[in-house]
Amino acid sequence: MKQPQFVTFSRNDGQQSEYGLINGQGVINLSRRTGDRWPDLKAVIQDGALLMLAQEYGETPADHNLSEITFKLPIQNPGKIICIGVNYPDRNAEYKDGQPAALYPSLFVRFPNSLTGHEQPILLPPESEQLDYEGEIAIVIGKGGRRIAPENALSHIAALTLCNEGTVRDWVRHSKFNVTQGKNFEQSGAMGPWLVPLQSAEQLEDIRLVTRVNGEIRQDDRTSHMNFSFAWIIEYLSTFTTLYPGDIIITGTPTGAGARLNPPVWLKAGDVVEVEAEGLGILRNRVRAEVPPC
Amino acid sequence: MKQPQFVTFSRNDGQQSEYGLINGQGVINLSRRTGDRWPDLKAVIQDGALLMLAQEYGETPADHNLSEITFKLPIQNPGKIICIGVNYPDRNAEYKDGQPAALYPSLFVRFPNSLTGHEQPILLPPESEQLDYEGEIAIVIGKGGRRIAPENALSHIAALTLCNEGTVRDWVRHSKFNVTQGKNFEQSGAMGPWLVPLQSAEQLEDIRLVTRVNGEIRQDDRTSHMNFSFAWIIEYLSTFTTLYPGDIIITGTPTGAGARLNPPVWLKAGDVVEVEAEGLGILRNRVRAEVPPC
Repeated sequence: MKQPQFVTFSRNDGQQSEYGLINGQGVINLSRRTGDRWPDLKAVIQDGALLMLAQEYGETPADHNLSEITFKLPIQNPGKIICIGVNYPDRNAEYKDGQPAALYPSLFVRFPNSLTGHEQPILLPPESEQLDYEGEIAIVIGKGGRRIAPENALSHIAALTLCNEGTVRDWVRHSKFNVTQGKNFEQSGAMGPWLVPLQSAEQLEDIRLVTRVNGEIRQDDRTSHMNFSFAWIIEYLSTFTTLYPGDIIITGTPTGAGARLNPPVWLKAGDVVEVEAEGLGILRNRVRAEVPPC
Repeated sequence: MKQPQFVTFSRNDGQQSEYGLINGQGVINLSRRTGDRWPDLKAVIQDGALLMLAQEYGETPADHNLSEITFKLPIQNPGKIICIGVNYPDRNAEYKDGQPAALYPSLFVRFPNSLTGHEQPILLPPESEQLDYEGEIAIVIGKGGRRIAPENALSHIAALTLCNEGTVRDWVRHSKFNVTQGKNFEQSGAMGPWLVPLQSAEQLEDIRLVTRVNGEIRQDDRTSHMNFSFAWIIEYLSTFTTLYPGDIIITGTPTGAGARLNPPVWLKAGDVVEVEAEGLGILRNRVRAEVPPC
């Protein structure tokens, strides 16, 4: 069954963000139809109305061709974006030194401005030559909560999307602890292309997640190999912080980032990074060298 | 000269947040007078209007006694809160092993819900016995910017306040990297009591910052000893992320947190923590054991 795909976009002739549903090579403009009630996808999610909108408007003819729109971050104003540090097996560690898996994940935070939409340029800042990709699956919280029991955790997920959790490696290592600076260069990563509502736990169980650079596969693993499951992550995070509708959790990257290659290979201007997952589509971004204004 | 003190508060008979100016033992309600134009202090700051309001309304008689209000976080909706990890000399390290100071600070992020207002309880969660205090000075960004030159940096600060950057120590050590979880337990720290506008660089140069637990001094240092100055921090952070009006930077704590005592001493229910700085007042909070709803 084809899953509904919710996008946030602007029309190429305007700055205003609208939301809609993909229909073939076009977009059904939902802001026109339901924008008075829900100004953005976060508001739709807060009211648990994604599936209702898909049902009501999913067969409507498209209003805009994809060529007429600019993809934006699916959730423009998330309350928080929490990232899971190490969550897929590193085959070297797994087979060579047999280290036990960590009991708890490393957590860090990204600000929304560090991410851009599908098909928008990812920026290589002039302060570094070490921009790297990390393909990940992101979950969007639908129903908020604190100290969520694991057996209820999946019911708190509204939707899934993809993330290129772009990282400036030398800045990640500026301090002994915490990776904040290297994870938050403006527009150094991307999210999208769209939100796919979560309708069944099976959608999460064994997603194949692949990252390609200029067509070459660099990361390739499955969610069934995650150290910390989606449900466990929601339980753990909600132990210390209240989760709210629209909060985003980026759930970790498979081995194979550029930093792991020998020698390391960094992204350069013109490179195209694609993050693809079964059922979620392809998030594609080209790297552009950032030229700061004088 | 007495500095203006801007508060965000609710009246004890209501949930709505208002803002105002302290006048003796009372509060001048500014929301009543200028709430149509500026819904909150972040909006006032965005328009650079703090000093104008202080001048226009500073001599108005108080509308409410302090006993009638509940102090809230001075900025209710900061775009981001960035914390500086290690920024004051550790006298042991300084005199015993002579390690060089780090080139860059450790950075982490707090969510607003991890902080409460002056005189509100700080919560010791049932998941830990290791709640600890960290007295700090926080700066509020007035004028946003990216790649801010150090010589202009102080002009981007709108105001100062105090923070008890409360920390759940065992959860800080859940992962080898990143302290996110131990720094973000709901209502585990506090900010306030009020915002003091920055009118001169001299206000920052040599602030004495003292933390007391049940009246006993535990931390006592001066901003002139900071490894990373206020101006340097603004330059560094704005290299990777755009700073916006209302963003908050918590600038690090002196040595002497409970974790550093031998043996460590943790906060327990009933303890009173006071963070005091010259010109900024006293942020006071009592520790309460959190009892989660069943």
